[in-house]
Formats: sequence, C-alpha cells, structure tokens
Amino acid sequence: MEITLEAPLDMHLHLRDGDMLKLVAPLSADFAGAVIMPNLVPPITEPGGMVAYGERIREAMGETDFTRYMTLFFTKQTEQQLEQAMGTPGFFGYKLYPAGITTNSEGGVANLKEAESTLKMMEERGIPLLVHGESHGFVMDREAEFLSVYRTLAETFPRLRICMEHITTAAALELLDTYENLCATVTLQHLIITLDDVAGGALRPHLFCKPIAKRPGDRDALLQAALNGHPRLMFGSDSAPHPRCNKEACGCAAGVFTAPLALPKLAEIFAAHGAADKLQDFVSGNACRIHGLTPSAKTITLHDKPMQVPAVYRSYGQQVVPMYAGEEISWSIRN
Amino acid sequence: MEITLEAPLDMHLHLRDGDMLKLVAPLSADFAGAVIMPNLVPPITEPGGMVAYGERIREAMGETDFTRYMTLFFTKQTEQQLEQAMGTPGFFGYKLYPAGITTNSEGGVANLKEAESTLKMMEERGIPLLVHGESHGFVMDREAEFLSVYRTLAETFPRLRICMEHITTAAALELLDTYENLCATVTLQHLIITLDDVAGGALRPHLFCKPIAKRPGDRDALLQAALNGHPRLMFGSDSAPHPRCNKEACGCAAGVFTAPLALPKLAEIFAAHGAADKLQDFVSGNACRIHGLTPSAKTITLHDKPMQVPAVYRSYGQQVVPMYAGEEISWSIRN
Repeated sequence: MEITLEAPLDMHLHLRDGDMLKLVAPLSADFAGAVIMPNLVPPITEPGGMVAYGERIREAMGETDFTRYMTLFFTKQTEQQLEQAMGTPGFFGYKLYPAGITTNSEGGVANLKEAESTLKMMEERGIPLLVHGESHGFVMDREAEFLSVYRTLAETFPRLRICMEHITTAAALELLDTYENLCATVTLQHLIITLDDVAGGALRPHLFCKPIAKRPGDRDALLQAALNGHPRLMFGSDSAPHPRCNKEACGCAAGVFTAPLALPKLAEIFAAHGAADKLQDFVSGNACRIHGLTPSAKTITLHDKPMQVPAVYRSYGQQVVPMYAGEEISWSIRN
Repeated sequence: MEITLEAPLDMHLHLRDGDMLKLVAPLSADFAGAVIMPNLVPPITEPGGMVAYGERIREAMGETDFTRYMTLFFTKQTEQQLEQAMGTPGFFGYKLYPAGITTNSEGGVANLKEAESTLKMMEERGIPLLVHGESHGFVMDREAEFLSVYRTLAETFPRLRICMEHITTAAALELLDTYENLCATVTLQHLIITLDDVAGGALRPHLFCKPIAKRPGDRDALLQAALNGHPRLMFGSDSAPHPRCNKEACGCAAGVFTAPLALPKLAEIFAAHGAADKLQDFVSGNACRIHGLTPSAKTITLHDKPMQVPAVYRSYGQQVVPMYAGEEISWSIRN
C-alpha cells in the first residue's frame, strides 16, 4: 500500500541553532515546509534576526525545496514593527508564549491585556497568532486552565486567526469547535501516548514534552479528530531536539524529537485506521486553506515497508534521540 | 528548638540485598526499627528466606538496636505456611502486590478472590495484610481505582488489619476514615511533592516513584492528616534505593531514597506547622498502638540546625542519590 502526499507541512517545528540546527534541519527535508518556532536564546523578536535565522536554516537544510514559515516571538509589537515584519519575506506570524512556561520562553508575555492593541492590529492585517496555551498551574491542568484565555481572545478578536498550538486535551478540541477563528496543531506523540507512557512504568525522558501527554480519553479524542479529518486541525510535530545529555541527566528538558519519522508513523496510523484519505488534509490541505499557503512543490510517497528508527541521530558533535529510537515503524518513505 | 522521639519507626522500608543493602541499611539506623519489604528478586515467600534476609540486614546495619519487622510476599499461603510464618521470629505480616505493578512485583496476586481463605485465616490469627494498592489503569487513577478492592477487603474481613501502604490521594484518606480495620502509611515525599515536582518543569527522576505523586489537593490532604495527628496514619518512608545509573538513564526505575533524611525533614515540616507534638505518634505511637509493637528502645533528638544532604551516598561500589541531594534541610539529628 502507498500514500502519496503533496507538499506535506510541519506547522510547528523547532530547529534550534548552531550545530544542533545543522544536525536536525536535514531531518525535516521530507516536508515541503514548516512553521519555524522563534524560541532561540535569546528569542527572535526582530525581522532582521528572523531573516538571518532563516538563512542559517536554508544553509543547514542543503539542496531541497523547503519553505520556511518564519515566526517572531510575540512581545506587544508596535504598528511599525508589525508593518516591518509583514514586509519581510518569509514572515508567517507571531508566537505567543505565556512567560516562562516552556523551553526558552522566559521573555514571554505575562499579561495579555497589555497586548490588546497589537492583537487588534494583527486581526486587521490578517497575521496569525500562534499560542503555546498553558497556564502556570498544575501540570495536568495547564492546558484546560488556559482555555479561558483562548475563549477571551477568540471573542475579543473574532477575525484574528488564533492557532492553539500542540493541543493535548479533549477540552481543547471542544473549544476548537466553538469558535470559527480558532485552529489548532497537534503533534505526533499526542496522537499516540498518554502520561502512562511517560511515567506509568519506568520514567521515559524521551517522551517527556510540554504540554505533557494527558489522559487516555484526551489522546483518543485527538486521534479521532485527526482521523475524521477535522478541518481546523493541522499536523505540527513540535519536534524538539535536545542534546542527549540534557534528556538523560537528572532534570531532563522537555521535547520529543519526531521530525524524521513523523510522516511514516502518521501514514502507519492513518492507514491502520482506514483513514489514509484523510492524511493529505491533515499534513497539508488544512494548513494551506486556513493560512492561504502555497508551499514548495514536493511530492512524497510513503509505503508499508518497515523503517528502522536509529537509536540516535548524531553529527556536528550533537546527539539527539528520536521517538521510537531503535524500534521499527511499519511504514517508510519510498525513495 | 528540639524534638525528642522515642523509638521512631519506618513502617515501610526497602533495603534490597547484597552491596546495595550494605550501603543503605546503616542509613536507616536512626530508626528503632522498620517494616522490611520482601520484594527482592525473587521475592521472599518463605520463612527460611525471611530469616536469612533478616540476618543479612542485621549484619549490614552494624552495631545498633534495630528491630526488623519482616514481611513475606503474599501468595495465597496455606494454613500450614501461615502457622510456620507466625512461629518464625521477626515475622510481622504479608505484603500483597497486585501482579506486576511495581518494582519486582511480577509474582504478585492477580485475583484476590482466590486468596480469600488465606485472608480469612490471617484475620483469625491477627496477621496484618500490607497492600500496595494500585490498579493497572492510568497512572493518575491507579490508587483511586484500587479503593474498591480495599473496600471489599475491609467489609469482607472486618477484623483483618489492612494497611493501605504509601497512600497518595485524598480519596484514600476518605476511605481510611470509613473503615476502622484500615490503617495506612504515607511517605515523606507524598507529604511534600506533587506530579508538578516530577514532571511539571524539567523531569526529575529522583522524585519518580510508585504510586506517582498526585495533585496538590491530594498532597495537602495527606499533609493535613499527618499534622492533625490522624490516629491510623503512620510514617512509612518507602525509601527505595536504586543504583544511580538506573535512575538517570532512559527509562529510570521508580523509587525515592529518603531514609537518611526522613526524620530531620519530618521534624522541619511538623515544627514549621506548629505540630511538633504530633510527630511522635506519626513516627511511632500510632504504629505501636495499631500493631502492638514494642520496638527497641532508642531515643533520637532532632534540632533546628541545618543538615547538608549529600549529593550521593556511595560505598560497596553502589551509588544512591537521595531526595534533596546537595541541598540543605533546616533540621538535623543532634548527635
């Protein structure tokens, strides 16, 4: 069996910088493009830095057509800053982090009220707002507690395109269905795992991410929404490389690295559920329609031949352990 | 300020065996005694093995009065086996593990119905049943799901002394208050941490244990019950050493090592909450009354002088990282 995908997109990708960027960027080359997260150290807040980062990504990707949808760290930008960003090639939208919630988000916005004028201008200009939607509360409640913020945003700015990034709960899906101006991304791992996989048996640092994987009912709801072709749910891997030593030492960092195996695994899942016909929209069609994207032409064919996932990806002195490290996935990319 | 404790007891302790036993046994020597868990590999099911293990513990403890309350792994023992156990010096009770739930519990009982005759005989003979009360369900629900088993046991065997080991939820406390024949142990860490501490920021393998730390409301309820002097709640550290490499590698084992700092930390907590007068019953009085124990005479005085917790305890080629490794606790043992 085969599935051919036109211009698959990863709507939420972390590529980091420096040697780590050089290691991981080519591992996303099966995608036609990706929305690139700006949370470097320091975060990317200015178009100049964004263009330079985009150029470093282009170099790291090597010879492939890969559309970089660049984002800026949301910091209550002025009208002039918005105009400048919009005039910068490659600019896609702003990424809002509640202050201090996730990797390198210490500079995020703590009070959205102060940002209303920026949000109003984004609404008028059609600039999407991508949101890491978690409160500072108890780890299992953070997304649910943040839903009231999404609700307020959706009602206050009814034409603002608000993307709930990497949703992990059935409650977030319900909210998604309530407001037409909300869309959402979901990762590979949140279609598959629950907190049980992270901490139910042995502790598995390579499945630890933020938002943390939730309950079986949440995972099941997300998977069903994806398989049913939810029109405003898009694939965003949130693939997040951390150096191996940071993941395996005490106090490991959050993030699951899935970029090189996401498409084969998605094909495996969608095919196993008889939903192969829904994969194109999930990994590209919905995003293109919602955001008006025209990514690089790239066709990729997946087939039901096994892929052996490496135990570790290494180069440039960096090591990253992927999801399913050392295991076999029953689908792969047909070369 | 000082708190003097008579015969403090650790009502739930893992000492392992071999070199690890030699390392950790002396680190419990401030206690007058402890209930020793039988889940070695293979588990201790026979009095002969129990006596031999008790002897190895005695040797490892060195020169100190330390009463070993030995337990046997519950395996639907016959009347003859029960009588033999009761006639063996040092025997305290049976530890029941639902099959496969926690470290080295693969041989546990899967169906309690089959064990009713053994439980009836234990009830008649006054042998306590210590239970690791978790279902095989979702990690955050396992204790709550097991409560119906406790309920059935408590009602079916109204005179059986049933100890709910290392409880972690407010729901378990509620059940404890419902049946007079239930008692419970609680660990140090479950009075302090929640899942947030394990997986809310970075992942912290040295705080990962089973049952996993639960929600803030659960932790608060347990702490209040301890501070209020709940008459059927006893301190049981569940201190569980794992070799450092097992804790810090991918897929780390469950267990928090608290034995050497449990009494100072408990004194700090109880004093900070103005409940110093409740500590004696929590760490000894309740257990002696409930189980009719007469432990070794040992008096220990704690005072509000800081204790520096080692980053690691090491000897005999073993390394164990304790809770609060490298940190300071504001109380210590007065030598």
